[in-house]
Amino acid sequence: MPYINIKITDEGVTPEQKAKLIQGVTQLMVDVLHKNPATTVVVIDEVSTDNWGIGGEVVTSIRNKQKS
Amino acid sequence: MPYINIKITDEGVTPEQKAKLIQGVTQLMVDVLHKNPATTVVVIDEVSTDNWGIGGEVVTSIRNKQKS
Amino acid sequence: MPYINIKITDEGVTPEQKAKLIQGVTQLMVDVLHKNPATTVVVIDEVSTDNWGIGGEVVTSIRNKQKS
Amino acid sequence: MPYINIKITDEGVTPEQKAKLIQGVTQLMVDVLHKNPATTVVVIDEVSTDNWGIGGEVVTSIRNKQKS
Amino acid sequence: MPYINIKITDEGVTPEQKAKLIQGVTQLMVDVLHKNPATTVVVIDEVSTDNWGIGGEVVTSIRNKQKS
Amino acid sequence: MPYINIKITDEGVTPEQKAKLIQGVTQLMVDVLHKNPATTVVVIDEVSTDNWGIGGEVVTSIRNKQKS
Repeated sequence: MPYINIKITDEGVTPEQKAKLIQGVTQLMVDVLHKNPATTVVVIDEVSTDNWGIGGEVVTSIRNKQKS
Repeated sequence: MPYINIKITDEGVTPEQKAKLIQGVTQLMVDVLHKNPATTVVVIDEVSTDNWGIGGEVVTSIRNKQKS
Repeated sequence: MPYINIKITDEGVTPEQKAKLIQGVTQLMVDVLHKNPATTVVVIDEVSTDNWGIGGEVVTSIRNKQKS
Repeated sequence: MPYINIKITDEGVTPEQKAKLIQGVTQLMVDVLHKNPATTVVVIDEVSTDNWGIGGEVVTSIRNKQKS
Repeated sequence: MPYINIKITDEGVTPEQKAKLIQGVTQLMVDVLHKNPATTVVVIDEVSTDNWGIGGEVVTSIRNKQKS
Repeated sequence: MPYINIKITDEGVTPEQKAKLIQGVTQLMVDVLHKNPATTVVVIDEVSTDNWGIGGEVVTSIRNKQKS
C-alpha cells in the first residue's frame, strides 16, 4: 500500500527510465518491507529547471554555468 | 482551512468533472469536519500515464494491454 | 488509481470522522471519474496548529484569539 | 536540508519571480533555522486555474467573475 | 537533485529498514538517471493506519478483519 | 491562494521559529507575486532524522558522525 512520489527535473527522462524507476521502487518496497506490489503506487513529477532551486539558485542558471 | 491534493492520471478529465471534484471534496470537509469552505483549498494534479505506476508497471502499458 | 492527500489540523478528529472522509472521497472518485475504488488511496495528515499558518499567522494564535 | 514545495496558479509567473521565490525561501531557512543553503531544495508547482479550487469553486470561474 | 517522498503505514518499520529504503532509492536514482547522490533527498512519512484508506476502507479496520 | 509546504527535520524547532517561517514565506508571496495573504496557506512538516536521507545516508547517522 505504499505511495512513492519521485520529483525530478524534466531533462529528457525516457519512458524506459521511468519504467525502471517504477519497477525498482516497487521492488524495494517488496524486498525491504514485504509490501504488496499490487497496491504500491509510484508517481513521477517532472519539474521544469526554471521551477527547481538548490543552494538558492535556479537549476536553469546552474545548468547554463555548467555548459559555459 | 483544509488542503486537499488529488492526484489522477491525465486521461481526458473535463473542466466539469474537476469542478465536481472541487465542490464535492469541499462539501465533505464542511459536512464531516465543519470546516470553513472559504479557506478550504483543493489542488488537482493530472499526471501522464507514463509517470504513474501501480503493481510495478507503468499505467501506459497497463492501458495498452487493456485495449488489445 | 487516484491518490488523495487530505491535510487538516489535529484538533480532535475522531476515527469515525476519518472513516467518513476516506469513504466520501473514494466514492467521489467513483461517482465523478468512474475510478476503481480498490486502488484508490487516501492519506490523511493531521498537522499541529503550531505548524499551520494562514494569513501569515500561526493557527495556534488564531485559535487563542477566538477563545478570548 | 529543508525541502520546500510552493504551489501557485500558473498565471504568468516570470522566471525572475521564480528566482526571487527560490532565493527568498532559501534565505529564510538560513536566517530562521541556520540551515545549509547548499542542500536546501525548493520546487515550484504551477497549477492550471482549472485545477485549483477555493471555497468550493474553481479558480477559473472566480477569475471570470472578477473580470466581468 | 531528486526528491523522493515515501509514504507508508506506521506498522513497526525499523531504523534498519528505513536506512535500506533511503540507500536503495538513492542508488536507483544514480543507476537509472545518473543523478548526484549528494543532493538526492529522501523523506519517509509514517502514517497511522487510522489515517490511511484504500478501497474506501480505513486500514485499521482492514487489519482487524485480517486478524480475526 | 498559494500553498507552501516546508519539510524540515524535527531538531528542536521552536514555536517562535515556526511563526517566523510562516510570516516570512507569506510575505514573500505578497512581495514577489502580489498574492492575497488571507488565503495563503503554509504547512510545516517536522520529520524525524531517522526518516530523512541525503546522499543515501540517514540524517541520524550523519548527526552521530558530526558529534563524534
